[in-house]
Amino acid sequence: MNRWDQLTEQQKNEVERQLQIVSRGAADIIPAAALKEKLADSIAEGRPLRVKLGLDPSAPDIHIGHTVVLHKLRQFQDLGHEVQLIIGDFTGRIGDPTGKSETRKQLSEEDVARNAQTYREQLYKILDPQKTKFYFNSAWLGEMKFEEVLQLAGKLTVARMLERDDFAKRYAGNQPIHIHEFFYPLMQGYDSVSLQSDIELGGTDQTFNILMGRTLQGAYEMKDGQVAILMPLLEGLDGVQKMSKSLGNYIGIDEAPNEMFGKSMSIPDELMLKYYELTTSLSNEELQQLKQGLEDGTVHPRDAKMKLAKTYIGMYHGEQAAMDAENYFITVFQKRALPDEIELIELSEAELEDRKISVTKLLVTLGLQSSGSEAKRSVVQGAVKINEHKVDDPNERIEVQDGDIVQVGKRKFAKISLR
Amino acid sequence: MNRWDQLTEQQKNEVERQLQIVSRGAADIIPAAALKEKLADSIAEGRPLRVKLGLDPSAPDIHIGHTVVLHKLRQFQDLGHEVQLIIGDFTGRIGDPTGKSETRKQLSEEDVARNAQTYREQLYKILDPQKTKFYFNSAWLGEMKFEEVLQLAGKLTVARMLERDDFAKRYAGNQPIHIHEFFYPLMQGYDSVSLQSDIELGGTDQTFNILMGRTLQGAYEMKDGQVAILMPLLEGLDGVQKMSKSLGNYIGIDEAPNEMFGKSMSIPDELMLKYYELTTSLSNEELQQLKQGLEDGTVHPRDAKMKLAKTYIGMYHGEQAAMDAENYFITVFQKRALPDEIELIELSEAELEDRKISVTKLLVTLGLQSSGSEAKRSVVQGAVKINEHKVDDPNERIEVQDGDIVQVGKRKFAKISLR
Repeated sequence: MNRWDQLTEQQKNEVERQLQIVSRGAADIIPAAALKEKLADSIAEGRPLRVKLGLDPSAPDIHIGHTVVLHKLRQFQDLGHEVQLIIGDFTGRIGDPTGKSETRKQLSEEDVARNAQTYREQLYKILDPQKTKFYFNSAWLGEMKFEEVLQLAGKLTVARMLERDDFAKRYAGNQPIHIHEFFYPLMQGYDSVSLQSDIELGGTDQTFNILMGRTLQGAYEMKDGQVAILMPLLEGLDGVQKMSKSLGNYIGIDEAPNEMFGKSMSIPDELMLKYYELTTSLSNEELQQLKQGLEDGTVHPRDAKMKLAKTYIGMYHGEQAAMDAENYFITVFQKRALPDEIELIELSEAELEDRKISVTKLLVTLGLQSSGSEAKRSVVQGAVKINEHKVDDPNERIEVQDGDIVQVGKRKFAKISLR
Repeated sequence: MNRWDQLTEQQKNEVERQLQIVSRGAADIIPAAALKEKLADSIAEGRPLRVKLGLDPSAPDIHIGHTVVLHKLRQFQDLGHEVQLIIGDFTGRIGDPTGKSETRKQLSEEDVARNAQTYREQLYKILDPQKTKFYFNSAWLGEMKFEEVLQLAGKLTVARMLERDDFAKRYAGNQPIHIHEFFYPLMQGYDSVSLQSDIELGGTDQTFNILMGRTLQGAYEMKDGQVAILMPLLEGLDGVQKMSKSLGNYIGIDEAPNEMFGKSMSIPDELMLKYYELTTSLSNEELQQLKQGLEDGTVHPRDAKMKLAKTYIGMYHGEQAAMDAENYFITVFQKRALPDEIELIELSEAELEDRKISVTKLLVTLGLQSSGSEAKRSVVQGAVKINEHKVDDPNERIEVQDGDIVQVGKRKFAKISLR
């Protein structure tokens, strides 16, 4: 690294400082040495690095698991670098050419625009808008002609593409891989060519696709291809599976404060430090302090977790909401009493027969459960109480009174108001 | 086949007649039953079939091996059908995106236009221009956007593509297959979609690509996909290898009449009937008669071959040229005498030293051989004579006289004129 020798001592120290910050928590950095070179170039030339993240245009609902990469982006921004957010609208607009996949449904231009707006609102809770650029990859991919597509496809071999984990498994298992699927990594990689990204962030499950960007930059004769910073996949509240909406083990960043507080308190103790490290903006020093405190017993895990819960709510709903949620939590759970205020929900006579209603329909009508089957499951699991008495039979018909308090689990309450 | 029952007896006979003619000599027809259906539809609706042939835009130099499919096309035309000739200029204009192949070099628009003109001149010696349409596939492929390319790629799986013989071998042998190569069969197949071809012709080595057209027509929801008529690959003059320019075992249709006659006489006896069947317009009846004559000894093989030679020259140079070439052949070879007229070629003093010149340089200067190494080989093989005396030493320096006759093999002569 010739550049290194030309730096002043102060600049070298700055490179080391930035390297330490941006490396924190990363599962892998490929190639490791190149990150330091990129930072050295940036500091020597006074040029911010371009740090890329690709976004799925169909799923703008962000949970804490997603924020792992977002916090890493924010660290780069705080160090003066620029973030490139790519909304993969081109891919989304195509859908699945085979028509066989339900998960990759075709998005309209309106869908994409609406999702992009949702992304902005959510992402700016973490990112600095001044240092964030949004791109739609249809801008360059949508204009490509067949000839250019062939040039792109000619950069890679079939064998190399079949090394990607999921392709390898499907090919070995005689499951069909349609040829257009080869283009998803190629398109993601070409985005990096088009935007001349210096660094691309992603979860470890994105390793192949992100390295593709580096390969393609080389094939398109850009020197110093992008560096992959691969972040660990955050386990969800079950402590085992990757956090995901479909598994239900997630904390959404748009969830109500009390819900967010309660869910945060159910994070497994052994994962708490990982959550702190990857999903908050705690400094390395504060993190070290916390770790020490937990180890020598001067910090109680429950208190640390309540602080984590407050940190989340502070970030996504503000300080006041964080304090309110903490008070609510202490009242309801720690004092094992009913909360001060329970939402009053009107129940119309039309929904009753002789003042009676099935317990499952009651739970759904009050908005405590989203479906009859979910409600039934809660009753069977013993999670449903009316006026602090457990309901056992999911088929029971309840005679309701004005002011009855209905409770599901530890955190959901409603007070009935009869009209 | 419901259509069949609606045909009159006369129409049914016509279907059978056409089927017999167009099936002659075919190595395979896939699917076999569909060809009869296509013909029945055509006759019932009074609609000519669209019979497609793809042409390589880089190699317009046609030899007898290529004419196998052309004669088949001509048979279709004589039965009232239409021929679609596709010049794959789109592929040719792209070249090889990897830049690694020398054989697939990029063609300019001028190259393509010039080659197309050469094709026209050569092909119309066999085809009926009134029933021939030329297409350039850049017309539709050049306009395709990435999105449409993905739709196309989504029609096929990787595993299916890797079934193609050469891909399968290379994949198994760990030789690189670049992803864009998958598009060559897809493009050829898409040509059939675009032109709604009923039938595609090709050599047996084109089986995969032609069936791709049928597959893609189905995927693009055209009913009754095209039928593949696969013609045998014609062995060249060596009787073993496929006729090809690079192997030198070919008869070019633009070759001079005497050359063509001589080469035709070197066709192996056992292949003569195959040549007749596949590369002339002899009717089935005439072919049967010839076969019978050869079997019962009433036709001498040499006479049959001379007739074949005259047939070729008649087709490509006219009847007069055919007769002249025959006379020349009889004079030179059968009577083992020098031909009546030998071309007089001037040799300038500048090319001589003391009236001497090396034998190899002499052969090249007279235009009897195209290179020094070729000339040397001829001498070593004992094929070179000066004034009917064999020259043995390729390094020999010859003292030349005005009027000397130089001969290479049985058919190449030149008379020296000193200036």
